[in-house]
Amino acid sequence: MTTELPATVSWQDDTLCLLDQRLLPHKVVIEAQRSVEDVFRAIRELRVRGAPAIGIAAAYGLAVALQSSQSTSRDASMRVLDAAAQTLKSARPTAVNLAWAIDRVLARARAEASADIYTVVVDEARAIHEEDRAICRGIADHSVDLIRSGCGIVTHCNAGALAVSELGTATAPMYEAHRRGIPFRVYADETRPLLQGARLTAWELAQAGIDVTLICDGTAAHLMTQGLVDLVLVGTDRVTANGDVVNKIGTLPLAIVARHFNVPFYVACPSSTYDPNTPSGNEVTLEQRAPDEVREIMGHAIAPMDVKVLNPAFDVTPSDLVTGIITERGIATAPLAESLAKLLSSHRAATTQ
Amino acid sequence: MTTELPATVSWQDDTLCLLDQRLLPHKVVIEAQRSVEDVFRAIRELRVRGAPAIGIAAAYGLAVALQSSQSTSRDASMRVLDAAAQTLKSARPTAVNLAWAIDRVLARARAEASADIYTVVVDEARAIHEEDRAICRGIADHSVDLIRSGCGIVTHCNAGALAVSELGTATAPMYEAHRRGIPFRVYADETRPLLQGARLTAWELAQAGIDVTLICDGTAAHLMTQGLVDLVLVGTDRVTANGDVVNKIGTLPLAIVARHFNVPFYVACPSSTYDPNTPSGNEVTLEQRAPDEVREIMGHAIAPMDVKVLNPAFDVTPSDLVTGIITERGIATAPLAESLAKLLSSHRAATTQ
Repeated sequence: MTTELPATVSWQDDTLCLLDQRLLPHKVVIEAQRSVEDVFRAIRELRVRGAPAIGIAAAYGLAVALQSSQSTSRDASMRVLDAAAQTLKSARPTAVNLAWAIDRVLARARAEASADIYTVVVDEARAIHEEDRAICRGIADHSVDLIRSGCGIVTHCNAGALAVSELGTATAPMYEAHRRGIPFRVYADETRPLLQGARLTAWELAQAGIDVTLICDGTAAHLMTQGLVDLVLVGTDRVTANGDVVNKIGTLPLAIVARHFNVPFYVACPSSTYDPNTPSGNEVTLEQRAPDEVREIMGHAIAPMDVKVLNPAFDVTPSDLVTGIITERGIATAPLAESLAKLLSSHRAATTQ
Repeated sequence: MTTELPATVSWQDDTLCLLDQRLLPHKVVIEAQRSVEDVFRAIRELRVRGAPAIGIAAAYGLAVALQSSQSTSRDASMRVLDAAAQTLKSARPTAVNLAWAIDRVLARARAEASADIYTVVVDEARAIHEEDRAICRGIADHSVDLIRSGCGIVTHCNAGALAVSELGTATAPMYEAHRRGIPFRVYADETRPLLQGARLTAWELAQAGIDVTLICDGTAAHLMTQGLVDLVLVGTDRVTANGDVVNKIGTLPLAIVARHFNVPFYVACPSSTYDPNTPSGNEVTLEQRAPDEVREIMGHAIAPMDVKVLNPAFDVTPSDLVTGIITERGIATAPLAESLAKLLSSHRAATTQ
């Protein structure tokens, strides 16, 4: 990576280091994790966030558990790992990626005959980390040509290097285009209520030297009337079988506005985000979050504290508003249902070969 | 008014009282204005905001100036008024309504033969106040039928009683429907960056007992997918000859989203907001405001303090996205240019008769 952005998760000299995202953008603090309790706290307290980043941190966290134990036998080490796994999984019990990464490392440790369990664990954690990096690089390679010299891009929330690895998803083509010296501008929606765009995206792109401008969520339409926007690029939490896109609240109006002004609307994600078992966005239950996230900003009341609030975390952008879905396997385009199924089945074929 | 909302500006027992809007919604403080300096400070420091409210406060402020002076002769009183007028106008020199209201009171004081200048000044200030109330009542009467039993309404920013008089503009049909016992729900956009929706609209509607729910600016589209929204009602700062609507940033995406879901989009304003001399929104220069309004919320940094920001105060909603423009003279509908000109010319005829 050609940028100055510190890694969210890194493993150097046998030390797990995590960037404390709670303190961004005001302070850049990278903390060495000395015990499994340290890693537990970091995940629990959202110092590290973003599904892939949490999984990678927990995988390395198992190696940290072995470092701080005195066990010498293989059996003793396995007991340490099992206890650490239980602790780490409990940090955010609903995070699917967390349990998946931990179980994968445990399975590898059990399967390998080698007595050097520590090396096996580090090796598998590194493999998970490297696969995540490769996915982001794949997304970058498939989509960098969407960014033409001088273009303006709107993005929403943070689907960046802070949530994933190295290049992020929606940000992957931006980092790659920047590396190639292509000039472009990014307008980052601040993304109320939790302001991931203001706190994280604006910060990480600026750190990388990318020309980024922070805007309020209602401003992108006005910029489109001024001819400043050529492309919208966002991430997603789930893509359903028909190509509907579940993403941070505020994505749907951005897609509608983009269509109104004939601006292409692209979504970037790992192919694992595709959920062929859910027919459409109508079948997805959208999380409602706490009213105080809207009534307060960083602990300061901005509204009557007894006012009713609706605070859905996500909205659903119907597939007909989506120009393309960028994965590490290629870009799915209309008709999205067929295009996604084709990309996915070729993926399955590749992994089973 | 049938509500519990305290008046922004009131004149009772020869005392000018102003509601300090800076402290809302956390504190309701109504302060008696004892001198022209008090009124100057209240306007300067935005304790009172909204063009009509500022004009009315300044008109009464001239009466306050006479109260605190020792002058007994007519000439001495006129000198007091002239000095007070100069002071009050300097509080917000670009507020057209402020100078207009002051000059109107001065002209009446000069024209009247009566030696009792104080009574003349109070009388003219009351006339201005009453005309503003009548305009809001006219808007309410013409538009209350838009609010059907059980309907859901999205509004943006604050075009309410706090900015105008008594009923407000966009809120006028809401207050009238509520008075008539018609049940409905309002979704108030918080309205970043300055959060007038969260701080003022949500507060004033809740005070009046209206069913109001606060939402982030990117949430209305999702509510429309759920069938919760039947109507959008907003105010405006200027309507151009062709019916384009200049209003708070974030109004344009709301209009585009409303059109996408076939939700009617109405704009409410006094007929004086119509500007027949500006052909369209393209000719309106839109104010760019300070970056720190976006980087900070109520003094707390929410983004890197050196990040670039675009912070336009307004956007332009093209007339073809506007279902109707509600004035005290009636509702203009498509084709808006012709409909507005007809409403305006009948107004001119009425005033010159």
